[in-house]
Amino acid sequence: PLPADEAVRLSRAANDAAAAAVTRHPTRFRALSTLPMSAPGHAAEELARAAARGHVGTMVYGRSGDRLLDDPAYDDLFAAAAELGQPVFIHPQIPSDALRDASYRGFDQLTDLGLATFGWGWHLDAATAALRLILRGTFDRHPALQIVLGHWGEMLLFWLDRADSLSRIAGLQRSVSDYVRTNFHITVSGMLNPALLQHALSVTTVDRLIFSTDYPFQHPTGEQISRFLDNFETEEDRRKFSSANAAALFGIEV
Amino acid sequence: PLPADEAVRLSRAANDAAAAAVTRHPTRFRALSTLPMSAPGHAAEELARAAARGHVGTMVYGRSGDRLLDDPAYDDLFAAAAELGQPVFIHPQIPSDALRDASYRGFDQLTDLGLATFGWGWHLDAATAALRLILRGTFDRHPALQIVLGHWGEMLLFWLDRADSLSRIAGLQRSVSDYVRTNFHITVSGMLNPALLQHALSVTTVDRLIFSTDYPFQHPTGEQISRFLDNFETEEDRRKFSSANAAALFGIEV
Repeated sequence: PLPADEAVRLSRAANDAAAAAVTRHPTRFRALSTLPMSAPGHAAEELARAAARGHVGTMVYGRSGDRLLDDPAYDDLFAAAAELGQPVFIHPQIPSDALRDASYRGFDQLTDLGLATFGWGWHLDAATAALRLILRGTFDRHPALQIVLGHWGEMLLFWLDRADSLSRIAGLQRSVSDYVRTNFHITVSGMLNPALLQHALSVTTVDRLIFSTDYPFQHPTGEQISRFLDNFETEEDRRKFSSANAAALFGIEV
Repeated sequence: PLPADEAVRLSRAANDAAAAAVTRHPTRFRALSTLPMSAPGHAAEELARAAARGHVGTMVYGRSGDRLLDDPAYDDLFAAAAELGQPVFIHPQIPSDALRDASYRGFDQLTDLGLATFGWGWHLDAATAALRLILRGTFDRHPALQIVLGHWGEMLLFWLDRADSLSRIAGLQRSVSDYVRTNFHITVSGMLNPALLQHALSVTTVDRLIFSTDYPFQHPTGEQISRFLDNFETEEDRRKFSSANAAALFGIEV
């Protein structure tokens, strides 16, 4: 991770640049802020500064160096995000070297990398970060906090039967799946698979699902998107998924 | 893991004891063999010996000490399992200490343990072992090999859209999901959730799904089981799931 002072300086510069782009193209762009996660004491402050400049949320990784996202050092950040209504998008990240050594090596270099990232490891890592955030009691302390996960909620959405068994032993007020239903929004990152939609609708509601591509990696054609939208039962659900949920979550007038 | 000679000795004793129990109660029991996985050079031999005594398959972990199941040292074992028609059940295991340090610690002791095992980590570990086995080209070398995964295929069944992207870079003959459809059977381990059944049927066929409980941890009542069986479309599918698939896979006459 970046040295703290450099992280603060670069986050400000990135957020100012993004705010300027949004100002120039208000009908095309909105920005999620970049935070100095290696300087936890300054993250809430930069979140607030970027929010005041029009940023509609923030995007973080599940780990900064050795510090996991559920580290108590970030609790002020989550408090600020809840209070300011700034959703926190947890973006997948390459797993730590220790994790790669333990689980993702032993093939050729490219397969090792694919296994640790886009084919598998990224998603376990983001899902584990989200689950740890729940187990840490984050949503008991900050019930208004909203998290966004890409890729259909990473793997978390598919494993709630088991993850729910952790609710009580972690001393949570509610079940893991209950936090997922009330404190998480899910984007699809271009994975237009009706089976994943169907499963998502079995654990959360259509109000929580948000269309997204993953440009330039996943960019379905207009026809593929239209065909996928046919899987929604009503025009209203299609509208929620396509734009209304995102507009409501990020406070965007469309 | 056990010292090699002790592993060989104890595996033999365990398999002989299990064979004797099956002989005493042939209408109630069948056995999966225990193999000396810390003595890879002896694993195929013990598999064959147990198979000759009537064992219908074997059950292994995804790792023995530091040696992962896809280590080339086990390739003779998979060759023997394919040739003898002995399915290999990959059972979840507590993750390595390195993995626990990297991903599953920082809460109280019980939550750390639950996160690393039944609530989350077990399943990632078994799924990663299965995926690594595929990426290692195991099923290209041994196309007749059959793997069994519990818990609805651990997480692997839910992440094939992404895992498939690894097929080409790992130099496989077929796609990851194709191996899952043809070389894997899936048991449910008492997780009687219709949404999981529905998803499983979107990636594999009813011929590959096998009822199981997870006694004494998950033991649904007869009524819960009956209600779950109502989710199958035909009596034939119910019969396959309840008994015929297992009978065919393990070569059991019922």
